[in-house]
Amino acid sequence: MSRIHPIIMAGGRGTRFWPASRHDRPKQFLAVAGEESLLTRTGRRVFPLSSPNDAWVVTNVQHVGMAADHLPEIPHDQIVGEPVGRNTAPCIALAAALVEREDPEGVLVVTPADHWIGDEEGFRAVMLRGVEVARERRGLVTFGIVPSAPETGYGYIEAGDPLDAAEESARRVARFTEKPDRATAEQFLAGGRHFWNSGIFAWRADVFLEELSHHHPDMASECRRMAESVDRESALQAGYAALTSISVDYAVLEPSDNVYMVPATFAWSDVGSWDAAAELEDSDPAGNLLLGEVLAQDCHRVYADGQAGRLLALIGVEDLVVVDTDDATLIVKRGRSQEVRSLVDQLKASDPEKT
Amino acid sequence: MSRIHPIIMAGGRGTRFWPASRHDRPKQFLAVAGEESLLTRTGRRVFPLSSPNDAWVVTNVQHVGMAADHLPEIPHDQIVGEPVGRNTAPCIALAAALVEREDPEGVLVVTPADHWIGDEEGFRAVMLRGVEVARERRGLVTFGIVPSAPETGYGYIEAGDPLDAAEESARRVARFTEKPDRATAEQFLAGGRHFWNSGIFAWRADVFLEELSHHHPDMASECRRMAESVDRESALQAGYAALTSISVDYAVLEPSDNVYMVPATFAWSDVGSWDAAAELEDSDPAGNLLLGEVLAQDCHRVYADGQAGRLLALIGVEDLVVVDTDDATLIVKRGRSQEVRSLVDQLKASDPEKT
Repeated sequence: MSRIHPIIMAGGRGTRFWPASRHDRPKQFLAVAGEESLLTRTGRRVFPLSSPNDAWVVTNVQHVGMAADHLPEIPHDQIVGEPVGRNTAPCIALAAALVEREDPEGVLVVTPADHWIGDEEGFRAVMLRGVEVARERRGLVTFGIVPSAPETGYGYIEAGDPLDAAEESARRVARFTEKPDRATAEQFLAGGRHFWNSGIFAWRADVFLEELSHHHPDMASECRRMAESVDRESALQAGYAALTSISVDYAVLEPSDNVYMVPATFAWSDVGSWDAAAELEDSDPAGNLLLGEVLAQDCHRVYADGQAGRLLALIGVEDLVVVDTDDATLIVKRGRSQEVRSLVDQLKASDPEKT
Repeated sequence: MSRIHPIIMAGGRGTRFWPASRHDRPKQFLAVAGEESLLTRTGRRVFPLSSPNDAWVVTNVQHVGMAADHLPEIPHDQIVGEPVGRNTAPCIALAAALVEREDPEGVLVVTPADHWIGDEEGFRAVMLRGVEVARERRGLVTFGIVPSAPETGYGYIEAGDPLDAAEESARRVARFTEKPDRATAEQFLAGGRHFWNSGIFAWRADVFLEELSHHHPDMASECRRMAESVDRESALQAGYAALTSISVDYAVLEPSDNVYMVPATFAWSDVGSWDAAAELEDSDPAGNLLLGEVLAQDCHRVYADGQAGRLLALIGVEDLVVVDTDDATLIVKRGRSQEVRSLVDQLKASDPEKT
């Protein structure tokens, strides 16, 4: 029988997690809201679906070594380096083509490396349900997060009919929706038919590539060619940059009429900012999450990341995010971490070494 | 004519300025609320009264080199190292004996190294008035700060009669008062006859030693002996620890009936805590005082000391004291910096290297 192949997309860059994230150390390599990196936790979460021997990581070529350090269980040959980022469609197409060589009917479970999941068992149960649908229907399965707030920062999936009476947990997809305005998001939340687009997917390697070849035939054939190359690194270096930079949602899911959605009830976050990270876990009754070497006296609702080996001492403060690194410390009022971006832009001009 | 000899008492230790102050780097060597250390600023403030060639520093023997770095203008031989701290009476007695050898009628202007003065010209004018009184009256002159609040953390001087109608700025001293309770401090403030005891003094070397010899004859003779020793360092090593540890207030001023007070109208602080430091100066209209490498967006009433060469980035925070050093960062709510002491006590047990 075909196997399950976890595909971890670890190509993100992003400056929203400055000062911990830098141009040479993006978010997925950070221990945000925990002791291990988001990438390491993503691996541990998906490996039990099959085996690390069937898992793949796609990351920027300069981060291949770091990814191997964070996920030593994965065979080194299955950590793929993109010479440049080309969004999710080429990334997944390449992974599908690599799997297809040996297990064409193998099912890819595709997940970003930098998300947070509250319930790992629940996560895997939902993934296995998605794998089942992908196999039975030869379809493209996306996972929709049951929304808990009228978020305007996410795309939404509008669910269509259930597959059948016995399978209420899987639905057809009526349509994909761009990030809504606040009023629309509130309607979505009240209506109960809209789900957050998680960016997590399940599909057979061959089914995906066939669907892709209808919409982007060059991308499908080029990825198959690079996957079969003897010298993969050179092949990617020569060919990857020429692929169309496009998301898998635009490239494949939206034009396809073979898409299903499995609702995901597990707690989920795309950890888009320090504020989002601070919401994920509490470490003490006062609502603080204190990581690393932190000494706190009478503090409340403080997220403090003291994992740089220095000491953070906090007295009588509240509603702060504090992030300490070797050469910079950020202190930001909770609720305002989106302003980190403008600060980093300022720094790029004045002190680029620290960005 | 006899000269003026600035005497800078730099023997303090103190942990209230952790993490900037450590056991090997006390407060007077810190650039609290400014770009230069309190010691350096004290030197620059008193040198114009005479010359650095007539100035003396008394500090702990392990800090002699650091004091020389902070006050390179002073002849190295005039930086005196105490093998152990013995409070202010032996410190001043030794300095008086050293001055007395060459200029017995020379007037000592004695000042702690770790105070903040708001008006340097005004300060020197008041000092010169004190020197005048010390010379004319052959008396012991103390400087009383005009109180601006019912402080319970200071000793008070109750002023007696003016010396004469033409000299209203100098008064006799009726009595010295211990730190009062709040109600008493409020009475003092309302009554207008009480002043804060600044710990700043002026007197002739010979007059001081004569007065001391009435109350502590051994201390006077022993200090004279050590001052005349050819090998001063060995003499201090052998004899200093045996001196009575006592303040000059208890040892000399309180028992003497030859004490005068000159009211000091300049802005003054003994900089007893980070909160006190944060009150001294504003660097911007939002009430922030930002020292060193600090990037602040929309912050208010923040004292941030980023003089460790790292970067402090602050967004949307208010009423904080932030102090960054090589191996530790303190973040404390303004008004609560007295709690730094208990934190340092905790650290002494868990991580003594950082205290």
